[in-house]
Amino acid sequence: MSQPIGKLVVIGVGLIGGSFALALRERGAVRRVVGIGRSQANLQEALKRGVIDEAVPDYEAALKGADFVLLAMPVGQTKQVLEHMAPYLEAKIVVTDAGSTKQDVIEYARGALGRALLRFVPGHPIAGAEASGASAARADLYQGKTVVLTPLTETDRQALETVRSAWSATGARVSEMPAAEHDRLLAAVSHFPHVLAYALMCEIAGREDCAMLLQLAGSGFRDLTRIAGSSPEMWRDIVFSNRAAVLAELAAFEARLEEVRALVQAGDGAALARMFGRAREARRLFGTCK
Amino acid sequence: MSQPIGKLVVIGVGLIGGSFALALRERGAVRRVVGIGRSQANLQEALKRGVIDEAVPDYEAALKGADFVLLAMPVGQTKQVLEHMAPYLEAKIVVTDAGSTKQDVIEYARGALGRALLRFVPGHPIAGAEASGASAARADLYQGKTVVLTPLTETDRQALETVRSAWSATGARVSEMPAAEHDRLLAAVSHFPHVLAYALMCEIAGREDCAMLLQLAGSGFRDLTRIAGSSPEMWRDIVFSNRAAVLAELAAFEARLEEVRALVQAGDGAALARMFGRAREARRLFGTCK
Repeated sequence: MSQPIGKLVVIGVGLIGGSFALALRERGAVRRVVGIGRSQANLQEALKRGVIDEAVPDYEAALKGADFVLLAMPVGQTKQVLEHMAPYLEAKIVVTDAGSTKQDVIEYARGALGRALLRFVPGHPIAGAEASGASAARADLYQGKTVVLTPLTETDRQALETVRSAWSATGARVSEMPAAEHDRLLAAVSHFPHVLAYALMCEIAGREDCAMLLQLAGSGFRDLTRIAGSSPEMWRDIVFSNRAAVLAELAAFEARLEEVRALVQAGDGAALARMFGRAREARRLFGTCK
Repeated sequence: MSQPIGKLVVIGVGLIGGSFALALRERGAVRRVVGIGRSQANLQEALKRGVIDEAVPDYEAALKGADFVLLAMPVGQTKQVLEHMAPYLEAKIVVTDAGSTKQDVIEYARGALGRALLRFVPGHPIAGAEASGASAARADLYQGKTVVLTPLTETDRQALETVRSAWSATGARVSEMPAAEHDRLLAAVSHFPHVLAYALMCEIAGREDCAMLLQLAGSGFRDLTRIAGSSPEMWRDIVFSNRAAVLAELAAFEARLEEVRALVQAGDGAALARMFGRAREARRLFGTCK
């Protein structure tokens, strides 16, 4: 990036926020990192690991003289955090976030930020989140990953460039698209697939012979249900934040299952193999292009 | 095992059959291994790697003086192979198989084997099959894996013990259950989950914005759809072999999706989080017990 960020404020110094700070530090793209968060133990860990230079107790102190703010706390707190920080957003501060849904975040920002909305650039780094906390943060988390920015029509171009440039410095590929498109696409490849994994795991868990079923489950089942180990509250929030798109995916998937049922009932093995074959081709393409 | 197998015949020397032979060899549990198969290149590779001692062109030569036969060719060939080998099954030969469904294999065996049915022990080693061919075979494939045997009421006890003892020697845990139970349980944790992964991947593959969707897909989607890279013909055959149980799983899963839909539409976040939470608990238990 052209010029280092002077003072970076990371709100929520976990895997996402901490890795952002570490990546920028490693590239010399930031001078000073200040962390704010609810867990003192986590902030101490972040200090110890050199993720942040200072842990600050309140928004006023954190935002004083700040250049760049990343919201990386659990998405359920977004509205509240935006409201708390709004009074202290000086005229030059650029703000971005890392939430999995974007239309709801934009709605909260519109309600809370006033003029500072122009320098708010909604974002979503698509990076796994199995581990959590400052102890899981690492400088290479975003290497080769995709970060989507969903600027508003009124978003300041300079603010957008600052955020794009910071994410590029972490090694990520930065895409831009409207928030509604982001939410629709992510419902298909992330939000609904999580529902699907939870539903399958829940179906098996609810059966009397669950223990025997799990003993017979192989590596395919293990992979398929891995994301059912994710935070229930976080994914409940994401599903509700993006409910229309998630329900549309659910309906599309049910239609696809009905197609399978019809082929099996009709004994149409050729068509079923063609369908499985199209899926395999796409999966191989996916394996190659990532 | 108490006494080594004298002459082992492996029909289809791929990942499954080749790994069985290698594991028994390593444990000194077999004296001589003969391979039979349709691909000369694969049999040569098996010879080169020491998976088999000899490649034999026909069933008559292969079964002459044999003690133990493992059927490990693609399941679609089971009926034909049983019919071809039946005339050469001497009175002492114990036969087992490695097919993913058991009721259909038993039906074919009843039709083809005559008196030799008593020494046929249906089996199913639950081991991943991403790689294939003799080159993928390895002595430790079955270490800690589950092998299910589904003997008939008339199965000879000594034959059952021979097969159980051979699989135990490979490092696998051996379970026994009726074939119908096996097929019902495997539909839930393997056959239907494959349909589910194919259906999800096919749904995404069929969309105009497929390339963009795959660019936004993260590691969760990658894991969820890994098994959609499996052989379409093999899984088509498995689905049709076990169609009643697979369709029952499909219906149960649709009911579960409807439950999700109802909770989302009713705005019942607490119940949705509880459902996701039950799934996570079960997934964690699964992670621990395997």
